[in-house]
Amino acid sequence: MRSVSVIGIGETKMGRLKTQTLKDLIKEAGNKAIKDANIEKEMIQALYMGNFNGAYWSTQSHMGPLASETLGLGTIPTIRTEGACASGSLAFREALIAVAAGVYDVVLVGGVEKMTHQATEKITTGLASASDCLCEADMGATFPSLFAMIANRYFHEYGNIRKEMAMAAVQNHENAMLNPNAQMQKLITIDDVYNGFPVASPLTVFDCSLITDGAAFIVIAATDVAKDRGLNRAIKVIGSGHAGSALTLAGKKTITTFESTLKAAEIAYKEAGLTAKDIDLAEVHDCFTITQIINTEDLGFFTKGQGAKGLAEGKTARDGIIPINTSGGLKAKGHPIGATGLSQIYEIVTQLRGEAGERQIKKADIGLSHNLGGTAATCVINIFSGR
Amino acid sequence: MRSVSVIGIGETKMGRLKTQTLKDLIKEAGNKAIKDANIEKEMIQALYMGNFNGAYWSTQSHMGPLASETLGLGTIPTIRTEGACASGSLAFREALIAVAAGVYDVVLVGGVEKMTHQATEKITTGLASASDCLCEADMGATFPSLFAMIANRYFHEYGNIRKEMAMAAVQNHENAMLNPNAQMQKLITIDDVYNGFPVASPLTVFDCSLITDGAAFIVIAATDVAKDRGLNRAIKVIGSGHAGSALTLAGKKTITTFESTLKAAEIAYKEAGLTAKDIDLAEVHDCFTITQIINTEDLGFFTKGQGAKGLAEGKTARDGIIPINTSGGLKAKGHPIGATGLSQIYEIVTQLRGEAGERQIKKADIGLSHNLGGTAATCVINIFSGR
Repeated sequence: MRSVSVIGIGETKMGRLKTQTLKDLIKEAGNKAIKDANIEKEMIQALYMGNFNGAYWSTQSHMGPLASETLGLGTIPTIRTEGACASGSLAFREALIAVAAGVYDVVLVGGVEKMTHQATEKITTGLASASDCLCEADMGATFPSLFAMIANRYFHEYGNIRKEMAMAAVQNHENAMLNPNAQMQKLITIDDVYNGFPVASPLTVFDCSLITDGAAFIVIAATDVAKDRGLNRAIKVIGSGHAGSALTLAGKKTITTFESTLKAAEIAYKEAGLTAKDIDLAEVHDCFTITQIINTEDLGFFTKGQGAKGLAEGKTARDGIIPINTSGGLKAKGHPIGATGLSQIYEIVTQLRGEAGERQIKKADIGLSHNLGGTAATCVINIFSGR
Repeated sequence: MRSVSVIGIGETKMGRLKTQTLKDLIKEAGNKAIKDANIEKEMIQALYMGNFNGAYWSTQSHMGPLASETLGLGTIPTIRTEGACASGSLAFREALIAVAAGVYDVVLVGGVEKMTHQATEKITTGLASASDCLCEADMGATFPSLFAMIANRYFHEYGNIRKEMAMAAVQNHENAMLNPNAQMQKLITIDDVYNGFPVASPLTVFDCSLITDGAAFIVIAATDVAKDRGLNRAIKVIGSGHAGSALTLAGKKTITTFESTLKAAEIAYKEAGLTAKDIDLAEVHDCFTITQIINTEDLGFFTKGQGAKGLAEGKTARDGIIPINTSGGLKAKGHPIGATGLSQIYEIVTQLRGEAGERQIKKADIGLSHNLGGTAATCVINIFSGR
């Protein structure tokens, strides 16, 4: 398998983008990534598109050729990948395998979602389709309620971390203030989180990630091909892992540790020849504040039950030992479902290039992206090196 | 890249399966394929699921972990692929790349769709989401209308082949009579086609493929691994091609030749070291009768404009030189969108194994599956060898 590098990145501003269609978002982010890669469109040999639910929210499926026609990419093969909130990372993962295997040299990976034009009920129902409909959604479960159960069980097993969950939200809002593409540009306090609109106890609205329109695109290439082209800003993908677990909460052995993360991390760390200690920064899947804390444990940044303490001690802040979600995360940068995994990679690559401006962290050699789908029924992890 | 073989196949009966849920269909076809492969479930390292529009028709996305939990496959990585009616073939294509590259040794590929429980209008709207919604579906275009335009343009360029289109339907119904899994078990005549309910001129209801519930699963493995396990019924994948074209009809250079088929066929034939003359039988994407005829030309079985003549001369019949859609095709076997590409492979493998019973063709060494999405905006072709 060949070494593969990210050679171009592009994303839209995240938010309520009322005047932009799916095609507008694709055009903007796709062309930014291609321009950033400094390649001709003719070099792109395939397009992998992550999209969660254009079918339900915009009656638009078949996002592969929609994007390739919009971007003027001719007759290249395209595919849409879907794995709930990990749809974008799945596109990246499949593209990575194809380039590493030598099927293609240069591939465009995109993710897009448009949600905010829909009524709240339709957004919630569409999101709930990522659960087991017969056993969960149709019984009244929504994702906030499922993750609220996870939080309550976590409290039972490891103690009440309500305050630290609020601190995670506060920190992500702080980071988003320094990210011009972030949807949320507002500082909040722990009291704001406590007093937020109750969604599913213990989660208030400030514990929940955002409803977001947006797109993110990544150009990857065989590292040798990138070198031949003199593309010196290439960021290597040095490890990748993908794993799953039962779709239903009831089907999982435990809901306070995500088995899919454990397994995907084991694979990715092994491939990279690294451990959690070697990671300089990570974008982790903070669909809810509880999720962020569990993820930092499952990824090995903190021992089990110690994630909240680590956060409270400032270890996940931009100047901490393992900065988490410097982009603002799903919580404050935004969560355009199908684009989220690629927007995480956008942030990691930006940091590893040293181009993150005011939010740039000091030591950014090795970065990790961690993307979940559903209640962690899908997990994709990638490790990147700027060395 | 390693040689890859199909080691197991399974499918449900196709049709209006009112009492079976998506999970029931997955369970039946998935377990059939695993049993047919004669392997333990623990050997399966990943699951690729093709599904077109569970999100819209059943409010069920995230079909990867839904299927892996239903089949008891533990924490293996899963993914859903979507490319309209080619969703199943895309799952196969990506799984093929991953096994050929050595990422996995044994992979389960599945496809499922459940459509018939919905009202006709919702089925049609869901199908139309495979077009460009802003430019086509929202302007009133449906797939029958788009393919009717293709047929009329074909008549203009190559002459009126209305009769041969009807003959394609008649032939596919004849083949379906011998396929116990086929939805349609009824002989029709050319006059029946002519006098069928008019859908979009020149297409009547008998020119259109069926609305179908169903699932099909395929187990693939590295050929060496299959040999080590003594799995002697393995059918080798000797060529695979994937290409695209503009999503919109207006964006294509021509609509009477599908560029995506030309390109995918070129790649697949080259990889197999074969030409169209070497193919013993093919399942081609007959979403409409006109499509079948165009496909047999684009695949090189007949020169351009001669597909109808070839069909009329009996060359695509079961005892012809290039039997087409011995399963009954999308027209009569049925078209469970996300499962269709895998059901095509099911038929090719069944024929290559010599297990097709009454519809078995005499010489079945090399078979080809051809699957389109939308108005051929996606095309996946695979070539199989039973030698």
